[in-house]
Amino acid sequence: MVDIVERLRSACAQVSTDEADLVDAARDRWTMAATVARRPDAVARPATAAEVADVLAACSEAGVPVTPAGARSGVCGGAMPVHGGVVLDLQGLGGIVAVDDASLLVDAGAGTMGDALETELRSAHGLTLGHRPQSVAISTVGGWLACRSAGQYSTRYGKIEDMVAGLDVALADGRLIHTGGAPRAATGPDLTQLFVGSEGTLGVITSARLRLHPAPPAEIRAAYGFESFAAGLDACRRILRRGATPAVLRLYDTAESERSFELSTNVLVVLDEGDEMLVRATMDIVADEGGERLGEGPVERWLAHRDDTYDTDELARQGIFGDTIEMAAGWSSLPALYQAVLAAVAGVEGTVWTSGHLSHSYGDGACLYVTIAGMGADWYVPAWDAAAGAILATGGALSHHHGIGLAKARFLPAALGLAHAVLVDLKRALDPAGILNPGKLGLPHGFGGPAWP
Amino acid sequence: MVDIVERLRSACAQVSTDEADLVDAARDRWTMAATVARRPDAVARPATAAEVADVLAACSEAGVPVTPAGARSGVCGGAMPVHGGVVLDLQGLGGIVAVDDASLLVDAGAGTMGDALETELRSAHGLTLGHRPQSVAISTVGGWLACRSAGQYSTRYGKIEDMVAGLDVALADGRLIHTGGAPRAATGPDLTQLFVGSEGTLGVITSARLRLHPAPPAEIRAAYGFESFAAGLDACRRILRRGATPAVLRLYDTAESERSFELSTNVLVVLDEGDEMLVRATMDIVADEGGERLGEGPVERWLAHRDDTYDTDELARQGIFGDTIEMAAGWSSLPALYQAVLAAVAGVEGTVWTSGHLSHSYGDGACLYVTIAGMGADWYVPAWDAAAGAILATGGALSHHHGIGLAKARFLPAALGLAHAVLVDLKRALDPAGILNPGKLGLPHGFGGPAWP
Repeated sequence: MVDIVERLRSACAQVSTDEADLVDAARDRWTMAATVARRPDAVARPATAAEVADVLAACSEAGVPVTPAGARSGVCGGAMPVHGGVVLDLQGLGGIVAVDDASLLVDAGAGTMGDALETELRSAHGLTLGHRPQSVAISTVGGWLACRSAGQYSTRYGKIEDMVAGLDVALADGRLIHTGGAPRAATGPDLTQLFVGSEGTLGVITSARLRLHPAPPAEIRAAYGFESFAAGLDACRRILRRGATPAVLRLYDTAESERSFELSTNVLVVLDEGDEMLVRATMDIVADEGGERLGEGPVERWLAHRDDTYDTDELARQGIFGDTIEMAAGWSSLPALYQAVLAAVAGVEGTVWTSGHLSHSYGDGACLYVTIAGMGADWYVPAWDAAAGAILATGGALSHHHGIGLAKARFLPAALGLAHAVLVDLKRALDPAGILNPGKLGLPHGFGGPAWP
Repeated sequence: MVDIVERLRSACAQVSTDEADLVDAARDRWTMAATVARRPDAVARPATAAEVADVLAACSEAGVPVTPAGARSGVCGGAMPVHGGVVLDLQGLGGIVAVDDASLLVDAGAGTMGDALETELRSAHGLTLGHRPQSVAISTVGGWLACRSAGQYSTRYGKIEDMVAGLDVALADGRLIHTGGAPRAATGPDLTQLFVGSEGTLGVITSARLRLHPAPPAEIRAAYGFESFAAGLDACRRILRRGATPAVLRLYDTAESERSFELSTNVLVVLDEGDEMLVRATMDIVADEGGERLGEGPVERWLAHRDDTYDTDELARQGIFGDTIEMAAGWSSLPALYQAVLAAVAGVEGTVWTSGHLSHSYGDGACLYVTIAGMGADWYVPAWDAAAGAILATGGALSHHHGIGLAKARFLPAALGLAHAVLVDLKRALDPAGILNPGKLGLPHGFGGPAWP
């Protein structure tokens, strides 16, 4: 590794082999991170896309693993350098490069932090991205794109893959390309979507062009109660079917309604924002579709507590392992999916908690966000095996917005079928040395077998 | 070719070498089609995806060109077998396979004709796709997807790439894959968008899953006049900026307003449809953004004449060659783009007509649809060179919804830069024998140099 560190220093001004940096770069916020973490050999901190390209070219030549990382807030192990090598810390590629107010577009570096981006867009430009994941203060633009992030207002603004108009990407061999053509183009395939969700396995996103909106002039809130989770799901389906897209539309099952709102019902939290005429029409449609009116109280409570998280390391010290399983499916499958996943995990020895809510809706379906917990580290793998089995048997997608990382890599080939074999072909074409984020997405690489489980 | 025809017959029940079939399959509706057309050696008409796969595997093995074709209504030569070989006529893969009413999804074969699809969705299910290109009666689902089609109602419903939730694709080596995970997924890159717009060069779409909407219960129409095209563009920009997405929003310059509506202004035709509350709010926002009120007359006139076309073969016999150039750009570039393209073509010797309208709008920009005509076949290439130069110099996309085909293939490498080189890498990975639609998108193949110009 001495040779590659020297070579790295010629490619990138900031390269660290300090113990504290290596420990820090070894993990993200995945429940099992502490048990799997392996220190990288070096952390490279490029300040430009050209430095990213030089690092990749050097590592391709030397056959050294490269794990791209943003702020490492991911919860699936996607940024963990489980085969050692180099962690490519992209936080130095931060900040807004340009705003086109007429076209409502921003160019931002991959390392731009979410809250800094949103604050500057609002205060300096009167604009918003509309992307507000729970991790907004600890995640980056590049991380969002690499993992197909969703924000809490996605029912109006879409997921990050709906917001992106183009990318700058550094390839494994050091080429720098630009993808996308705003606002739409019919000039061959859109390579943007090849890199969005690739979790750093096909290329490294260095900058993104994202679509903006005026900071919303109006906001209306409401909450409703439903006798059953299935009745609430059906109301959400009907709202979307009528073309209404309220920014926030979150339906909690009885376990989560009790815990979060102290209400013995299935709470639907609704908030829309934007042009006043459209917000009013949208909220009128929501009101039209039924449910017991609960006032704005639950919305305020949700807003006050929406960023609360558990300290998973502390829970692990108590022997409790928890995780969240966010999945997507068509409306026709959702009621069965909810039942099947909760029942499958409940059937695993050691399970102490299962609950769920609907978190992001579309005309054709929604995301179901399930929380599980169990006793002992041995509980974790069987619980996920049970959940993934139920998701795939019901026709759901294994993830809606957390991504695959290490946590779900072993399920991906079966989930995608022969399309995964095509992904392998594309990986070999774009990263022939197999250096990019080895161990993720179930893709081939040159550094030994799968690292986990 | 005798050998491959025999081999084809073992892969596909219907294979024709009849003279009339070969002549018919030689061309599409491109202005220059008659001057460039070359007869294929055979037309294969598969009835199943398995037959498609078998034909592709046979042609990969034998190194024979395969040009996939739908109803050949394209206007860029994309379905023309300019290197001979086999035309793969996909019209036998027609019809609706399944409708999921709750999830608002339809599975339809690639050969399904547009009007048949829409008629069945409306009459049997009370649903609509919302995709209504001028070619709806002479184009197929697979053709729409291969070329990134847009319909006249796209400002509400999106382009075909926004409507597609997944694809069945046959690869050059005969593998059949399924892409996509409805409604959204974070399970690696979305390979759907790799094949959408690939114009048959990376794989053959055999079936698609598309998103639907209820047949619209309400519709409101209006028209407005603007003193200048730029003022009208700015009104459209402000309407989209407020989040309103009226299904139809078409702004005609003075030349087209005079020709189509006999009005000496810049006519904006607006029509929205859907849930009544949202349609009212949308049309209120449109009215808010100014323009002289013209009543519903221009909308009715547009509806009555929207499918009118010229007989380009007849015009060519008179020595007149015309074409349409549809391009996309951000709102900040559109006024300059309009001026630059019209001026560039007007400066070419022999030009007799230039005009334009805005046809499809998004938050970040719009499609500009320019009509040009000139005297003599020699006028055509310089006119396109001038137009493409102006588009690229202004930062526009070379096509918004017609695609690239033969007509624009020579401009694509420069337009995409190094991203085109990546497309070449992907082509080599997915079609190593280079058999798929040779001559299109400026991609490498094994059958001699570019066929045109």
